[in-house]
Order: sequence, then structure tokens, then C-alpha cells
Amino acid sequence: MATAGKVIKCKAAVAWEPNKPLVIEEIEVAPPQTNEVRIKIVASGLCHTDLYHLFEGMHKDGFPAVLGHEGAGIVESVGPGVIEFQPGDKVIPLFIPQCGECRFCKSPKTNQCVNAWDVGVMSDPESRFTCKGKKVLQFMGTSTFSEYTVMNQMAVAKIDPTAPLDKVCLLGCGICTGYGAAVNTAKVEPGSTCAVFGMGAVGLAAVMGCKAAGAKRIIAVDINPDKFEKAKVFGATDFVNPKDHSKPVSKVLSEMTDGGVDFSLECVGNVGVMRSALESCVRGWGVSVLVGWTDLDDFAARPIQLIAGRTWKGSLFGGFKSKDGVPQMVKKYLDKKILVDEFITHNMALDQVNDAIELMKQGKCIRTVLSISPQ
Amino acid sequence: MATAGKVIKCKAAVAWEPNKPLVIEEIEVAPPQTNEVRIKIVASGLCHTDLYHLFEGMHKDGFPAVLGHEGAGIVESVGPGVIEFQPGDKVIPLFIPQCGECRFCKSPKTNQCVNAWDVGVMSDPESRFTCKGKKVLQFMGTSTFSEYTVMNQMAVAKIDPTAPLDKVCLLGCGICTGYGAAVNTAKVEPGSTCAVFGMGAVGLAAVMGCKAAGAKRIIAVDINPDKFEKAKVFGATDFVNPKDHSKPVSKVLSEMTDGGVDFSLECVGNVGVMRSALESCVRGWGVSVLVGWTDLDDFAARPIQLIAGRTWKGSLFGGFKSKDGVPQMVKKYLDKKILVDEFITHNMALDQVNDAIELMKQGKCIRTVLSISPQ
Repeated sequence: MATAGKVIKCKAAVAWEPNKPLVIEEIEVAPPQTNEVRIKIVASGLCHTDLYHLFEGMHKDGFPAVLGHEGAGIVESVGPGVIEFQPGDKVIPLFIPQCGECRFCKSPKTNQCVNAWDVGVMSDPESRFTCKGKKVLQFMGTSTFSEYTVMNQMAVAKIDPTAPLDKVCLLGCGICTGYGAAVNTAKVEPGSTCAVFGMGAVGLAAVMGCKAAGAKRIIAVDINPDKFEKAKVFGATDFVNPKDHSKPVSKVLSEMTDGGVDFSLECVGNVGVMRSALESCVRGWGVSVLVGWTDLDDFAARPIQLIAGRTWKGSLFGGFKSKDGVPQMVKKYLDKKILVDEFITHNMALDQVNDAIELMKQGKCIRTVLSISPQ
Repeated sequence: MATAGKVIKCKAAVAWEPNKPLVIEEIEVAPPQTNEVRIKIVASGLCHTDLYHLFEGMHKDGFPAVLGHEGAGIVESVGPGVIEFQPGDKVIPLFIPQCGECRFCKSPKTNQCVNAWDVGVMSDPESRFTCKGKKVLQFMGTSTFSEYTVMNQMAVAKIDPTAPLDKVCLLGCGICTGYGAAVNTAKVEPGSTCAVFGMGAVGLAAVMGCKAAGAKRIIAVDINPDKFEKAKVFGATDFVNPKDHSKPVSKVLSEMTDGGVDFSLECVGNVGVMRSALESCVRGWGVSVLVGWTDLDDFAARPIQLIAGRTWKGSLFGGFKSKDGVPQMVKKYLDKKILVDEFITHNMALDQVNDAIELMKQGKCIRTVLSISPQ
């Protein structure tokens, strides 16, 4: 390829500072180094975690950065030592790597590769981006709001070449996160009763996961009743709007279910909702899973909630070992075993990223897919 | 028996009000009603939960009461409908019943009988005690600081007639609570690394449970270094006194164990220690269990602690289904598979109960066994 080994100049949406609109800029993307892969990003979803970084977390060392971590693309070139990928391969960048060699990768209990917390989550100090002479960080190691990005091969999944990238990009974060939280982390059981808090893409995917696991009743909880029709599409059987009740939502759910649900999933990222989700579980065996991301406050409850037999867990990327799990989820989609298209409410160009952000802030979309590079 | 069907007047230690010494009184114990068993209590341990009720919880509706919930005795008489017990049977009163018929008893996942929270924990409004014309409550449904008590048969375990009651009384609470928390709730695995916070009787029993489950390293954590020798007896391999370190104990444990322990058990009943115990666990699969009792404050942590793959659980009576589990633990003791005698540091008469309370407040005992009725 003509570009291999050279710096690529391309378009990217740069977050220069917290709480400001992104700016479309020309950036320089360095060639892939040893074990690295340079990827032309074709499409990317916009996820709430991008907004979290920009408007809530606002970590002072996290800017300037290129956001976006839910993308799909095509390998442009590979660095030394890469034999698994070739130019032209369809891939999904992974914000959690899977090195395959650490004690975490070797354990069936977890998807959290030892490299996940060092190179994967939040901005990688080893960015391959510059813009106007400044280093620009790769948010969550991925930066899919750029026409090109560079990833370590341990954080890239090769997928079926027939997969439509403008759909399966959503398997890079939200859908796997919610679906896997139900199936892998909560381990929802056939015949069980579940509650899912928050009907964004992650929550809808959790509903889909509960249904796939055989739950007989799936209660969707959201303060926006407009989400209910969509929730039904994914398998929700009941809907509760906490604003319709004067008593705590945990009481409402307890009364609906003769003592509480077997499994609850918090897909909002709000510590108050985390507490409600735990308290909505039945004594003895109820399992509640934190899925929504926040790191600004403590979550809390009374000790009796756990002593009474409940379990509190958390899930990152739905517990999927990323390189193994994402291609399998792509196959499930191609085999029509999971829904993906139904999450997409809007399609836009990269230039419209700030409009997409505004839509999400207003709760008016499930997922906007941005077209990044022409395919 | 001469007393069957009649009110028995006997000696008991009455807690007339919170935060005051117990008073040895003559009380009246009514005959057992339908499905009830009247028991002559031979011996009783003093547990921190008794002190919690008296000095910390101090629930306004919880007095006057007869404390004590870690006893053993002999059936004196039975009420109508009781065929499982006969006068002369050796028994242990249970603060969690096991009706055997509810959905909780029928599930292998929990020991928390539907009746546990209604009749079992804390003072039962249906007390069979009076003193000086006033109703006196049965703390945790048991009240083993009385020469006689009355229990529903669903909360009584028949034990091996050869068992020494002045030893196996401790299986009525502390030993089963700690041992079971490790074995049944945490499900400690062979070859794992564990940390146990708090080296009271419950913590020592948790150490014993970790060892029985095959843990290769058991780190005892206590601010009182005098406890270490005892901890070794039960299987502790390492000892950490948080006061010896300027950094948080979770950091100390993480450094000792290359990233954190596989299992941690909080056996103190302190929400700050609960947080430390969680934070001491390894990412990916660490499991922390709340064992110590407190209900005065929230426990809390950052969401990332769970999202990083840790699990927070709780345990009541070590997860043992009480009627099934206690006779099995008695048999284990008789078969020399668990230690019991080693928990007993003091023996006293019921009249000395306030001295026993003082010893425990000062952390100078593990367990004091009170002799209640002559056998």
C-alpha cells in the first residue's frame, strides 16, 4: 500500500479540552510500531462513555484526545512482528486487550487482561497521534473518531469479512457490554425474573441478554417512558417508570415480584440507581451487576442487604474476553441470533459528531452511527 | 416430667434497658405451645452480637430482653404437634430457622428461611418470658442466658447425644458463622490466597474454614497483635497489623500478594473494614464477604472496584441451612475435623455474665462459655 510505513494525514474529531465541542482537525497518524496495527476506521458509534470523559470525568490529564471507542474498520498496514493481521482485514478495535498470556487471560473467570488497566482504559500515554505539533491522546486506547488509528494487536479483533462495518461497530462496546453483563456476569438463569435499570443501548442489550438466557420476566426501568416501545423489541415484558410511584422503585419491584427480582443490572452509571438495583433483588440469592460507568462517587448500601444473601458484582465489556468474544458476537449477528440494527436510530457523518453528542445528551437517540472514512 | 405443661420459674440474665449491666432475675417461662419446644439451656457462649444489641444497636423496641443466642441444652418438654423432639434430646437453638418448606429452604442457594427475618432475627414479639409482670423479649428468638427457653421446632437442631454441650454451644453462632462464610459463601478454593479481617471467634473460624477449603496462604489482619498466636493455631500463615503501616492495609496486602487476595472475609462489623476487605481483593475474580454484623451505617466503595471484576457478598450464619448444618458441624467436631475447644478462653457461671461482657469489650477473650443450668 502506498501509505504503509508513512505518516498518514487524515481527519479526526479532537477534544481539545473538557466540556467543549469537538473540533474536526487534520491530524498526523504515525506508522504502526512493533506489534501494532494501523486501522482505517469506517464507522463508529457514539457511546455515553465518550460523553462521560468530555463532560463528567473531565480528567485533567485526558486532553487533548480523540474520543470514540465503538468502531469498526479495515487494516491499512501492520508493524513488525504482526502475523495475525494483513492489510484489508476487517477488524474491531478493542478497549480491553486480550494478550492471551497473563494470569487473567488464562483464567476462565475474567476478561480483564493485565494490560487492560495499563494500556486499555482511558488515555494511553503512548499515542500515535499529533495535531498542530501537539501530542493528542487516544481515548481508551482506541480513538475511533479518526479516519485512522493505531492499536496494539492484542487489542484488535479480526471479524467475518462479510460483516457490515456500519452495523457491527456497535459490538465494540455497548451491545457486548450489556448483553454480556446479563449472560456472562450475572449469569441470568432460565425462568428467572430480571430488572434492567436504564434503557440506553447498554440497558437494551442487557434486556436482550436476559431474554437470550431464558428469563421469563424482564422489567425495564427508566424515567423516560418513550423508551418502553424499544425495550419491548429486545424482550422486556414489564416497564416501570420510577416517576410514576411515590415509593422507592425497589419497593415497587419487590411488590411486583413477591419479594424482589433474581437479577438486576444497573446500566445508567449512577450510584443512587446502583443502590436501588441492589435493593430490588430478592433476599437469599439476588444478584445485582454494575454495568454503567461512573467513578465520581462511592456506591453504598446497608450491610444487611448483602448479609441477607444478595451479591453485588460489576461487569466491564460484559465479561467478554475481547479478541475471542467480539468475532463470536459478530457471527451471532450474521446468524440473526442477536439484534444490532435495531439499536441504530441515527446515521451521521463524522463532521456532525457534535450534533450526535447533543442528541445523546437529550436522550433522543439510542445509537448514532458515524460514518468515518469512506469504505 | 414434673414441669411439663406448667410455667417454670427460673434464673435468667435480663437486659432491662440498653447500655446497662444485665440483671440476674427470676423469670417465668410459659409451657411450649403448638410446634414449640422448651429447652433447658446448659451452656452458652457470649457473642459480640449480644453486645451489639446492648451497646450499639440499642433498638428502642428491643428491651427488656434476655440476650444470648449461642447455646446448647436439653429438651424439657414439647408442645402439641412436635414429633421430632422428645424430652432429654440434646439440642442447639437456632437463630435462623429452617422450615424446610419455603422457597428459600427448598433452594440450594441460601440458608435464609422465609421465617428467618420474621421470627428469627432480633426480638420475637411472641416471647414466652415474663418477669415482674412484664413481657420480656427473646433476643434473636433464642435467649440462651436463661435456664429455660422456648423455641419453635423449626429453629431447633437435634445433635449427637454424646456431644459436650459446654463446647458445642459455640456451634450455635460464631464458629459456624465464620467457618461457613469461607466454605459456603466465599467458596474458598484450593491453592488460593485469603485474608481474614478481625481475629475474634468468627474471624478465627473463618481462618479455619479457609484452611479446610485448601487455601495455601491465609493472612490474618487485626489491630491487636496478641491475636496472632491464636490465629496460627487455626491456620493463619501471615499476620498484618494495619497499625504497623502508614499505607492503607489494602495496599499492604496487594503488595504482599502480587495484586491482591483471591478471597477476603470481613469479620469485624465495621463499614471501613468492609471497604478495605474489598479493596484488598485481586482484580478479575476477587470475592469479599461481609460476615461481621452492623446495621448503623452504609458500606461503600468506588464502582470501579466491582467493575474491575470483584464480587461483594454477605453471609448470615455462614450460609449453613441451620437444622441440617449444625448437627453436621457437631459431628465434624466429634470426628476431630474442626476445632472448637480452642476458641474457649474462659468459663464462667451465668451470674458472672457482666464480667464476661467486660472481658469481651476489652478484647481479652475469644469466647467465654457460661454455665447456665446444672446438667
